[in-house]
Amino acid sequence: MAVATERARRPDSFTQAAKEAVAARDVCPFCPGHESMTPPEVLAYRAPGSPANGEGWWIRVVPNLYAAFRLEADGQERREGRFSQRDAIGACEVLISSPDHRAPTPLLPRRQVEEIVQSYVDRYRHHAQNPALEHVLILYNHGRPAGASLEHPHSQLYAINLVPPTFNDELGGARRFLDAQAGCAFCRTMEDERAAGSRIVFENDAFVVFAPFAARTPFETWIMPRRHRASFGELDLSSEKAAFAEALQLTLTALHEGLNDPPFNYYIHSAPLKASVDRDYHWHLELIPKLSTAAGFELGTGMWINVVKPEDSAAFLRDRIQKKVGQPA
Amino acid sequence: MAVATERARRPDSFTQAAKEAVAARDVCPFCPGHESMTPPEVLAYRAPGSPANGEGWWIRVVPNLYAAFRLEADGQERREGRFSQRDAIGACEVLISSPDHRAPTPLLPRRQVEEIVQSYVDRYRHHAQNPALEHVLILYNHGRPAGASLEHPHSQLYAINLVPPTFNDELGGARRFLDAQAGCAFCRTMEDERAAGSRIVFENDAFVVFAPFAARTPFETWIMPRRHRASFGELDLSSEKAAFAEALQLTLTALHEGLNDPPFNYYIHSAPLKASVDRDYHWHLELIPKLSTAAGFELGTGMWINVVKPEDSAAFLRDRIQKKVGQPA
Repeated sequence: MAVATERARRPDSFTQAAKEAVAARDVCPFCPGHESMTPPEVLAYRAPGSPANGEGWWIRVVPNLYAAFRLEADGQERREGRFSQRDAIGACEVLISSPDHRAPTPLLPRRQVEEIVQSYVDRYRHHAQNPALEHVLILYNHGRPAGASLEHPHSQLYAINLVPPTFNDELGGARRFLDAQAGCAFCRTMEDERAAGSRIVFENDAFVVFAPFAARTPFETWIMPRRHRASFGELDLSSEKAAFAEALQLTLTALHEGLNDPPFNYYIHSAPLKASVDRDYHWHLELIPKLSTAAGFELGTGMWINVVKPEDSAAFLRDRIQKKVGQPA
Repeated sequence: MAVATERARRPDSFTQAAKEAVAARDVCPFCPGHESMTPPEVLAYRAPGSPANGEGWWIRVVPNLYAAFRLEADGQERREGRFSQRDAIGACEVLISSPDHRAPTPLLPRRQVEEIVQSYVDRYRHHAQNPALEHVLILYNHGRPAGASLEHPHSQLYAINLVPPTFNDELGGARRFLDAQAGCAFCRTMEDERAAGSRIVFENDAFVVFAPFAARTPFETWIMPRRHRASFGELDLSSEKAAFAEALQLTLTALHEGLNDPPFNYYIHSAPLKASVDRDYHWHLELIPKLSTAAGFELGTGMWINVVKPEDSAAFLRDRIQKKVGQPA
């Protein structure tokens, strides 16, 4: 568990009135012309000759002003009785999707979505070289119910000095499968899903989009590269970047149009930076729409109750995408 | 993961308009006079001579009309390739807190809170006798952001034929502590918390209320019996019931008044019904206010970022309770 002292607020800031005051803030730090409201950019794709931290960019990456982790933390363990704590070390960045405050991914030109993917790869590879770090997570929160505190579309990157618990669980399962079956559990899952067909949402040359068999929520959807690679950092920019952008944008567009712009989270699961898991692991994106609420049952048990069968979710999204791209149904 | 076919809805029922139509429903099935809107009651505390499923009750327990689990499911495993699925078996019940639609726990007479606790114990013990079941979870969702779909205050019970993953994790940690230290990890935690003092919220003769060292969210609070017992079913009605009701109501009142009635979830963690964990486990209640949103980071990592130190949360609640009960600060 991480306590984010940099984000610390007074207890009374949690009242509804305080929250609404924040929500009503009408100057967006991610819009062009407001570059001075953020820390200095760490990456920008911008017009030749335009000055850093000025206008003229189409992708801009900045440190998160409310960082839960910092690279300069000391990382020393402190003990209190049988408990221990240490500073969380890492980098938190915001990847601004485009200059347009009101254009989420479905409304952007495809070329811009490819630029978003390019920025993911650039920042992933940058942090992957830092020997102090263990893991890089890239994620996107859309809509206030899904935790997006600023409306201007943006992704987030967390590069941290520990391996998150979910990865140890996922890797453990993948390793057991590898030992028993001499193959990658994720490659096998894709193969099985393609054979079954009922949970497939979309396929192109490089990616398979499907509703996982044990979907946790209505419309949970995974995007997985056909090519077996453990790390997102190995995304092939010539053969996979455009295909990934296509799969991501078509999926998000089907959700946006079919379900009236629901809130959602997605994150890219990629191998820990220092683990020897080239054969075991297979990077992928997990998309979880926020259509139901994780409540006492989910918190108390760690289990999810899903009110829609994954086959129904997949068919709904698949039909929409097929109509859009003109494929036969 | 559980797919609840009994709750299944069409994909387009997830649009915001559909949700608001449900929210606007103005006839409450949990109010007196509407007893016929629920399945027949399985327990009621009611005025002598009043007819079952009529008015005159002060606590009423009914099967959940939208049950995710059913006792009569067949439980047979079905295989599809390397996946398997089976019907979820169990009982889902709603425990209506009082006849008053607008009185959450902080606004009820203490005597009524004791009756709520009595109903928890009665239904826990009832299901614990069923050899088909492995686990009983009692929980409370307050407020729509915390997943309460009906406003009338009520708890829920899930009695299911499997041990939830969170318990295996929690038990594993407790067993390792027991093996290494020859004592209960929970008893030791209470002892350490009482010695430190900074995270203590409230104590009475039978319970300790505290913010856990690794609190996941602002104001996460645990209520733990001083007496070591693995199962909530062993709550001593003469020595512990009133004390539990006091600890629960004072804590909820401090939240209600101090933070302007925030949404929250609580659940009672109790030992699996058939596990031999009398020494290892120690039942307790975990209360998690919904003041922040579990978003991409939490979903992607299984880690929580908490923006308030548990010591600050505890001090805030402790001060409020001390003022209310007239204890010296």
